[in-house]
Amino acid sequence: MSFSIGPGSRIRKSPYFEALVAHGLTHMTTYNHMYMPASFGDPDAEYEALVERVSLWDVACERQVEVVGPDAFELVQYVSARDMAGCAVGRVRYAPVCDHDGTLLNDPMILKLAEDRFWFSIADSDLVLWVRAVGAERGLDCRVFEPDASPLGVQGPRAEDVVAVLLGEWVRDIPFFGFVEVEHDGIPFVLCRSGWSGQGGFELFLTDGSRGLDLWNAVWAAGEPFGIHPGGPTLNERIESGLFSYRADCGGEATPLEVGLGRFVSLDRADDFVGKSALLAERARGPARRLVTVLLSGERLSATSEHPWPVVDLDGSPSGEVRVAVWSPKHDSNLALALVASSVAGGGFTTVTPSGEELVATHLNFFGE
Amino acid sequence: MSFSIGPGSRIRKSPYFEALVAHGLTHMTTYNHMYMPASFGDPDAEYEALVERVSLWDVACERQVEVVGPDAFELVQYVSARDMAGCAVGRVRYAPVCDHDGTLLNDPMILKLAEDRFWFSIADSDLVLWVRAVGAERGLDCRVFEPDASPLGVQGPRAEDVVAVLLGEWVRDIPFFGFVEVEHDGIPFVLCRSGWSGQGGFELFLTDGSRGLDLWNAVWAAGEPFGIHPGGPTLNERIESGLFSYRADCGGEATPLEVGLGRFVSLDRADDFVGKSALLAERARGPARRLVTVLLSGERLSATSEHPWPVVDLDGSPSGEVRVAVWSPKHDSNLALALVASSVAGGGFTTVTPSGEELVATHLNFFGE
Repeated sequence: MSFSIGPGSRIRKSPYFEALVAHGLTHMTTYNHMYMPASFGDPDAEYEALVERVSLWDVACERQVEVVGPDAFELVQYVSARDMAGCAVGRVRYAPVCDHDGTLLNDPMILKLAEDRFWFSIADSDLVLWVRAVGAERGLDCRVFEPDASPLGVQGPRAEDVVAVLLGEWVRDIPFFGFVEVEHDGIPFVLCRSGWSGQGGFELFLTDGSRGLDLWNAVWAAGEPFGIHPGGPTLNERIESGLFSYRADCGGEATPLEVGLGRFVSLDRADDFVGKSALLAERARGPARRLVTVLLSGERLSATSEHPWPVVDLDGSPSGEVRVAVWSPKHDSNLALALVASSVAGGGFTTVTPSGEELVATHLNFFGE
Repeated sequence: MSFSIGPGSRIRKSPYFEALVAHGLTHMTTYNHMYMPASFGDPDAEYEALVERVSLWDVACERQVEVVGPDAFELVQYVSARDMAGCAVGRVRYAPVCDHDGTLLNDPMILKLAEDRFWFSIADSDLVLWVRAVGAERGLDCRVFEPDASPLGVQGPRAEDVVAVLLGEWVRDIPFFGFVEVEHDGIPFVLCRSGWSGQGGFELFLTDGSRGLDLWNAVWAAGEPFGIHPGGPTLNERIESGLFSYRADCGGEATPLEVGLGRFVSLDRADDFVGKSALLAERARGPARRLVTVLLSGERLSATSEHPWPVVDLDGSPSGEVRVAVWSPKHDSNLALALVASSVAGGGFTTVTPSGEELVATHLNFFGE
């Protein structure tokens, strides 16, 4: 099932948009009020390029929320469920952000650009509204806004080679979740070893939106000898690699403990943060649901399957949802993430596809463990 | 230019989704993390049905933010730039919501369901995060959440007839922006005389998402004698009717005074509200930009034109953007909304389309005046 979507002004085009069109983009989605490439027409080729060579991704839709000013650290530390104390300038921490009831609102990477300047590199919700409201109502002295910063992802086993050709061998020394501010041919960007795949690589946070095509073309040229391919976040690879997708995997109402992000929540830190007391209580009683990775029976699923699907336990009672499901080359099986009642999690269950087919789920792991 | 978009789990399907597919939906967009119908393949027929007969719209993506509890009014009144005092239960006010700098965050209708219970019926931003953060940080005693409430729009000159056939002649007495809670064949909904067209009609806020197809089918059956047609918010009609589209018309950074919503901002009310001092200062100095309605030269534009387009003044200097432009049957001309420097607003200017064509703009009116 597929529909057309055209480029209107309510949804923004990224600085790389023209390059996507030139490379034959066929499937789009939207993310943070921006168009995001979903496929260039051959999902198998995109998967193969990502896991065997190198893939170039317009992930500008992973917008930044900048917090800057004398009280920036105080605000970031208060809204982050992960302790940001001790994070060095030039380093990143992955940090769930919750509301006062412990409900997950976003799961950004937080980049510490300076002692008084941070970026939340966000998933798909208007986190800027949350952080700005909390800062303003607490009377904190800092600005909260969306800067001109648009990540371009270079992902895959040859990604480091591509970036080394582009910028020099020194980039090989950048540690995971480390970043530096650089300029290449007058194009300014933040070069960070990060990305939403398990294949390694970098994200180039372009900080001059007028130079999008220049940056895309420079990376493309450096990547051609390595077989670079246009792509985007890849459903089967990211499930294989255990990467969480806020909203896709949990809808709008889940806690970090339910979805396996507990190890990124600093429940034992001394200072208070938004949602702490609710999450402490949830830890004590145990989460009501769990996100699990399962293998699914049945014919090979396509990358564009319709989701979610209802889950029933072995007694036939409704017990949650398969949130996403797709064929996994790595497992040579259909692979899915399901958010299910804790009583069901860890065991088998069944789900029904939109075409009415009943599929059997086999437990693989609790997500994040 | 058009791309495919498929139904994944990160973007929600409305309770009416299957009906859209059955009626031959061809074009989709996304709004508040939900799929929204854009066209069923014949924009001219959809416009004609809307202005001459009656059109049925899935506008479930116009989500609700419910505020309920002892301090609900205090919170609503504080975040609303429009004075909500004196609003009766069963009535609606259109109310811009701004941040502390006076930047527009959303332009909801606010429904007063009870003295201690309100719905913000929102445009495309996560207003729930803003309202929840402000309420929690101020220690106000109320809950802020998204209820199960999905509007179905019945719009056009025969809309009242359709709803009268469905529910009875009494519905003709409901005033504009008045509503009642009703049940029809066990389907619960809030019936409100409102909608995002200038053609009149109702919105039925379904409050049991499992009954979406039942409600759609009941309205469809009542509407068939009147020539009901599937549709959705219609770009040319809504510009002709002077209806604002947050984000499409202004991007993410504008004030209500810039975009012609000043008459809905109660700057002279006695109590404080978020953004009041910033907006008072802006009123004193005059807004830097203005949203204007203009006629545009050139060949008939399609409903799926790519936007926005750059504006230059008569001296050739960059002066803003044409945000949306489309053929208007009413004006027998291309019609556009442009957000331009105040120095340019009111006069002529030129714009350049993505294909490089230069179009001449003729001032029609300041939006909202």
